[in-house]
Amino acid sequence: MTHKQADCIFTGRYLLTDGFQVNIVENGGIAVKGDTIVAIGEAERLRREFAEAPVIHEEHGLLMPGLINCHTHAAMSCFRGLADDLPLMTWLEKHIFPIEAKLTPEMVYSSTLLSIAEMIKSGTTSFCDMYLFSQEVARAADAAGIRAWIGEVLYDFPSPCYGPVENGIAYVSELFEEYRRNPLISITVDPHSVYTCSPDLLVRLGQLAADNDSLYVIHLAENDAEVATCLERYGAGPVDHLHKLGLLSNTTLACHCVKVAGHEPALLAEKQVKVVHCAESNMKLASGIAPVVELLNTGITVALGTDGSASNNDVDMFSEMNSVATVQKVTNMDPTVMSAEQTLRAATADGALALNAGDQLGTLAVGKKADFIVLDLDQPHLTPLYNIPSHLTYAARGADVIHSFVGGRQLMKNRRLLTIDEPRLLAEMRVMGENIFRLNNGGLTA
Amino acid sequence: MTHKQADCIFTGRYLLTDGFQVNIVENGGIAVKGDTIVAIGEAERLRREFAEAPVIHEEHGLLMPGLINCHTHAAMSCFRGLADDLPLMTWLEKHIFPIEAKLTPEMVYSSTLLSIAEMIKSGTTSFCDMYLFSQEVARAADAAGIRAWIGEVLYDFPSPCYGPVENGIAYVSELFEEYRRNPLISITVDPHSVYTCSPDLLVRLGQLAADNDSLYVIHLAENDAEVATCLERYGAGPVDHLHKLGLLSNTTLACHCVKVAGHEPALLAEKQVKVVHCAESNMKLASGIAPVVELLNTGITVALGTDGSASNNDVDMFSEMNSVATVQKVTNMDPTVMSAEQTLRAATADGALALNAGDQLGTLAVGKKADFIVLDLDQPHLTPLYNIPSHLTYAARGADVIHSFVGGRQLMKNRRLLTIDEPRLLAEMRVMGENIFRLNNGGLTA
Repeated sequence: MTHKQADCIFTGRYLLTDGFQVNIVENGGIAVKGDTIVAIGEAERLRREFAEAPVIHEEHGLLMPGLINCHTHAAMSCFRGLADDLPLMTWLEKHIFPIEAKLTPEMVYSSTLLSIAEMIKSGTTSFCDMYLFSQEVARAADAAGIRAWIGEVLYDFPSPCYGPVENGIAYVSELFEEYRRNPLISITVDPHSVYTCSPDLLVRLGQLAADNDSLYVIHLAENDAEVATCLERYGAGPVDHLHKLGLLSNTTLACHCVKVAGHEPALLAEKQVKVVHCAESNMKLASGIAPVVELLNTGITVALGTDGSASNNDVDMFSEMNSVATVQKVTNMDPTVMSAEQTLRAATADGALALNAGDQLGTLAVGKKADFIVLDLDQPHLTPLYNIPSHLTYAARGADVIHSFVGGRQLMKNRRLLTIDEPRLLAEMRVMGENIFRLNNGGLTA
Repeated sequence: MTHKQADCIFTGRYLLTDGFQVNIVENGGIAVKGDTIVAIGEAERLRREFAEAPVIHEEHGLLMPGLINCHTHAAMSCFRGLADDLPLMTWLEKHIFPIEAKLTPEMVYSSTLLSIAEMIKSGTTSFCDMYLFSQEVARAADAAGIRAWIGEVLYDFPSPCYGPVENGIAYVSELFEEYRRNPLISITVDPHSVYTCSPDLLVRLGQLAADNDSLYVIHLAENDAEVATCLERYGAGPVDHLHKLGLLSNTTLACHCVKVAGHEPALLAEKQVKVVHCAESNMKLASGIAPVVELLNTGITVALGTDGSASNNDVDMFSEMNSVATVQKVTNMDPTVMSAEQTLRAATADGALALNAGDQLGTLAVGKKADFIVLDLDQPHLTPLYNIPSHLTYAARGADVIHSFVGGRQLMKNRRLLTIDEPRLLAEMRVMGENIFRLNNGGLTA
């Protein structure tokens, strides 16, 4: 008798395929060959059909899609806690910008790897990053084996990374060349915002994204100051401004969208723009609360992002889900909105849609990539268990994730990272932290 | 040469005595004798002064006061995730009340123990609980060795625990007798609210509290419906209603206070009433956001509580601190309010003040009880480290706590509970969960 071929079968107490409680499979699993899921369903059937494949089983395990963090500045992990509870401009001008001016490629590489370590340890298997020295971001993602969308932040003024913006466009073109055939890394085009990029630059970068068939990732309508500046300069709000420039499309990833109102949600929906909601960062910086329920009701795909660790202060998507769901309820004064299932989908399937990767990621299904995580349900805060999406959104934490896989490759086993030398990285980051502390003039001990 | 006497010295990389970054001791520790801290400061000095005492050292450890959770319904852990995302009255009337009517003492004992397990594993060393069958709550707290303030919820209608309210008062009197000399357990008098207790009952219970020198714990001004009902019945809002009855005092613990405004904060401050803020529960139930910054500015002591696991859905005070700080910032549109230090104090020193135990708990100091926790800082999301209160409020999670001590007794060692048989408890709770699921008519799978 011949059996179907798989490299491995992964099984557990529960299998969450797509974020819906009704589709939970008890004693379920997936069979993986190469980087792809080749079968899914009841564990017993899989063991029968793939009798020669090794089986990895977790008695109290929940198998689920890896989380997708659609907006990060991963390297900012080196600034976490350096300066909090400050007015936005004080924070940026007195702390972040002066130190970013002294960033080195090595700092970005290690700090990104640190965020990736945290992401893997809290269940994220894909992230979409915008930062400086993004060749180093890509190198770190590649070394860690995590899936990533990576862009170099571009604006009119000189960059600590590439200098004048002309060099920035060349820098991004090199990235496209280098990673065109990489199965895990996609390059994006990332104008910083409408207030730091001239209309000309925004349009040029739109062409660059189109030429490379890439996402166009931008901070959009993040706070009142941005809207006021845009109105003053261009006589239009950020959404209308991009629309007039022909830059709203189904490859536009608009991060934040805290300040969208009136006709703007309908326009974003019509153009199939995807929105990345960054609840915790928007709250901590007092930017406001995005009208997520209205955006969803207008038919917009809303994904979630943590933003950087300097303004969140973590990249734990489980904590983010909890914040997203509860803050929308209280903002709308309606406990029925932003349900656990809706929130979980935003962190998985809708994240994949936002990255135009819905055919590859976001749910566990035959033919999709084997990007999945396993949670240990055998814990006081997850027992008893009535509804899995509820536990994942309201009670689970990143530390409940015990295994992580990207494209079939195991990145974490029983909370031990397999592709990152964690003790060495932490030791290195402590030294970097001491240097950054000195650069910041020690003005942060109080 | 004679040395000072201590049972043990605990040392770590950092010692946080009182929530203020400026008072951090590097390489610090505490010496404990019996249930009390007998010395505090630099580790080297302690080792010299108490040369005969055994030393427990954590190289990457942070020693800090245990967290104080000032409002729980611990036994509701058995309902976590049973019914979420519902209108408040549907949730209560279709799910919670029908099942609470069938509660047994055994269910309350085990479910409380489950919440205590979760609390210890997330850094809480004291909690203040209001629920049914509170003799079982006290039994569970006593068995676990955690510090607790415990009250039986009292109201005009018959209780699943004691029947008519006369029996309830007798039930509470028994509790006072039984625990009067217990070093860890204090009994409180807990009228449920102004809308479920007649003025007569509220006043009688005020006398009961005074006679027993206990706290008077009540849900107060939790949502608009409560305020409207109180206004309609008594021509006064909940705060004024209690005031007219002479029930606002420095032993009144007012939980929630979401809907206090106008002259009410000043009145609460004048009467030295303590407020327990329950941010995550208030958000999830869409009750509103308490005016915490205004309350603090009026001079009121504001402590934190998680509320029950059915409306939070966890008892993790680290997660709660993060929510408290960020939600206040965005509500006030000011990133400087509710700083990390302020939030941390609310979860420690101000929690102790709210329980009128500021002389015993809330900070680490000579003569205070040895209620402390040790966090493992050697982790990606806590490295580098610039500011400890920032990390504790914005980045740390319950799972970062590795050791826990109450009154000098170790309750958790390297995340293993020492006073609770966790595997047995979880197995028991799974069976209870199946029974509760059936009682709930299986109407919660979707």
